[in-house]
Amino acid sequence: MGFASIASQVRKRRPLVHNITNYVTVNDCANILIACGASPLMSDEPEEAEQITSICNALNINMGTLNKRTIEAMFKAGKQSNALNHPVIFDPVGVGASDLRNKTASDIISQIKLAAIKGNASEIKRMAVGQGYCSGVDASVFDTITYKGLDNAVEWMKAFSQKTGAVIAMTGAIDIVADETRAMCIFNGHKLMSDISGTGCMLSAMTAAFVAANPSTPFEAVCTAVITMGLAGEMAANYMRSFEGNMQYRAYLIDSIYNMDPNALEQNARYEMR
Amino acid sequence: MGFASIASQVRKRRPLVHNITNYVTVNDCANILIACGASPLMSDEPEEAEQITSICNALNINMGTLNKRTIEAMFKAGKQSNALNHPVIFDPVGVGASDLRNKTASDIISQIKLAAIKGNASEIKRMAVGQGYCSGVDASVFDTITYKGLDNAVEWMKAFSQKTGAVIAMTGAIDIVADETRAMCIFNGHKLMSDISGTGCMLSAMTAAFVAANPSTPFEAVCTAVITMGLAGEMAANYMRSFEGNMQYRAYLIDSIYNMDPNALEQNARYEMR
Amino acid sequence: MGFASIASQVRKRRPLVHNITNYVTVNDCANILIACGASPLMSDEPEEAEQITSICNALNINMGTLNKRTIEAMFKAGKQSNALNHPVIFDPVGVGASDLRNKTASDIISQIKLAAIKGNASEIKRMAVGQGYCSGVDASVFDTITYKGLDNAVEWMKAFSQKTGAVIAMTGAIDIVADETRAMCIFNGHKLMSDISGTGCMLSAMTAAFVAANPSTPFEAVCTAVITMGLAGEMAANYMRSFEGNMQYRAYLIDSIYNMDPNALEQNARYEMR
Repeated sequence: MGFASIASQVRKRRPLVHNITNYVTVNDCANILIACGASPLMSDEPEEAEQITSICNALNINMGTLNKRTIEAMFKAGKQSNALNHPVIFDPVGVGASDLRNKTASDIISQIKLAAIKGNASEIKRMAVGQGYCSGVDASVFDTITYKGLDNAVEWMKAFSQKTGAVIAMTGAIDIVADETRAMCIFNGHKLMSDISGTGCMLSAMTAAFVAANPSTPFEAVCTAVITMGLAGEMAANYMRSFEGNMQYRAYLIDSIYNMDPNALEQNARYEMR
Repeated sequence: MGFASIASQVRKRRPLVHNITNYVTVNDCANILIACGASPLMSDEPEEAEQITSICNALNINMGTLNKRTIEAMFKAGKQSNALNHPVIFDPVGVGASDLRNKTASDIISQIKLAAIKGNASEIKRMAVGQGYCSGVDASVFDTITYKGLDNAVEWMKAFSQKTGAVIAMTGAIDIVADETRAMCIFNGHKLMSDISGTGCMLSAMTAAFVAANPSTPFEAVCTAVITMGLAGEMAANYMRSFEGNMQYRAYLIDSIYNMDPNALEQNARYEMR
Repeated sequence: MGFASIASQVRKRRPLVHNITNYVTVNDCANILIACGASPLMSDEPEEAEQITSICNALNINMGTLNKRTIEAMFKAGKQSNALNHPVIFDPVGVGASDLRNKTASDIISQIKLAAIKGNASEIKRMAVGQGYCSGVDASVFDTITYKGLDNAVEWMKAFSQKTGAVIAMTGAIDIVADETRAMCIFNGHKLMSDISGTGCMLSAMTAAFVAANPSTPFEAVCTAVITMGLAGEMAANYMRSFEGNMQYRAYLIDSIYNMDPNALEQNARYEMR
């Protein structure tokens, strides 16, 4: 599908990504952007939001630790990015956990044109079909997508893509990326990925870089970002020594992105189109 | 004392911990919560504080980088947690360093029912007996508790527990955990632990998880969290190669929590009851 | 030049550094301060800024993720540090990227007496001579200082030092440190250093510690901090295994600071005076 060339474009174009993101995993987002060949910029002050986003190539909005000041920055940067035709990626972390998150997510979707929306099963389900069991910032087991349930999920994800105009990426044991007409179900990844804080946030940041570097093929760009992350998760697991745990796994994960051979993506991507 | 079963309960119940904590060590707190079997949620916006804490099982308040907005969130979340009977853990980082910290700590203690208060010797001494030499966020050498001084410290710690209703944990070369009638002096730990930023913050987060998973035995839960941390510090030191320093030590520390065998706690805990 | 004794003073005096810095790399700044023998304190609430800085030995102002609240804290802490004769280090991250950053940097330089200003080529150039191509928080290739261009750069850096009264440190493939009459061009360092987020921020924090511990020789202190960072970058590169990338490199970098032998600075420093 051209994964190698899509990933190579990121290193070639080195997109500058404006991140309005949470303070929990922000450092990992910065380092993974560098690891994949992009460049990070973090800023969440409303007064400079429009100018900052104007010098960047993409905007990544993550509402993990939103507050009223940063919400204002999200809208200012989002609207300016739209005006400049920069891709905007949205990660509705913890939607369902509070009225503030629900309203913010809903307003972002209705007021800002999004290139991609990335979330776990609970978050995407809630936004797409108004349900999804909220258990904090992690997906609830009640929302797990099984192999049997893929067709159903693909269906409402395509509808959600049609409604929003965004490519939808839903992560889990099986990741699904959908636009209005196509869906890719991705089987790469490793269970250790859910044992570190921030894999989702890192993927959103990286997705912004991949879409920015491949503006004419957003669906393929999002798929490639998801596969890159999953494959890095598999590689990282191979490096683990018996006494190592989630912290060292995180280092191996980002380091695997740093060392990723684009051709390995072609060879090791495991997916089905639906 | 049942350390193994207390630690096992955390992995079994997987408590969701709401953290209103500083932005310096917040990522370590998130990852150590996952490492010990719990689940982290960070949020400090007053508007959502009550709703967020309602879906969690415990609240961890750390005033390391407090500001007026987050202080408001601390009180809202604290009072709601009290109403729901969720355990609240308080880490008065840097109390004594400013009037704002002194007032905030004092108000929290008087307005919120705390399950546990965790701090270094300077912090706990200041809150318990109105003195304690403040030298920033680290304990002053003037406040070091020696083996000879244990009885004295235990006495005023029990009194402080009686006054506040909270289990008191004071960390240092020797850690002490006290409730109104009992005190455990813990000798586990390693001097490298004071060479990384955030061991104290990580312990507070983990304490919240341990108390949430063992609501009927808060004293034992706090003791087990402190022992788990100390033992992990010892294990981590064993993995250090000659060219490694405090950053790799931090990874080994959290990874040792991740790999901790509950039975090792029983075998390697070193303590005296007073 | 006495690098060994300057570095040793940091471990001996253990200066407490007040950091008003960005939330992206703040944890690395805390840990590198400990690694070099100093002690970190982070606080950005205006209400406590003056009291906090009063108990510290130096102030490090970094405007990476500035906002209106933290800007207020920068000025309060800066003026109080001046009143107490504490050294103030300023890192104008991303100056040129927004009017808010330009105004803040300009106001800090005119209202606060700075001991040192540290930035990349684009940032320092913009502040010193009103130009410098802004491409986010990283230096633009257009501003790269080559060996041939050293004399020219040294000239305007000395003039900028004369104007501000601060020691000027400009980092890049070649680092330059200048005061009004002298400049040291430093050739230590490794290209991997630009592949992690935060090397610049870490250097600023460490510079604050080095100047605080060597108050009578600020030029030499800044030079030693820059050489320490560069040499650690070289050492860290040696430890890298083939599958490791920027995250593990960061750990090795800070760990190399932690294990730095002061005598190695004398032996391995590579520089020219101009």
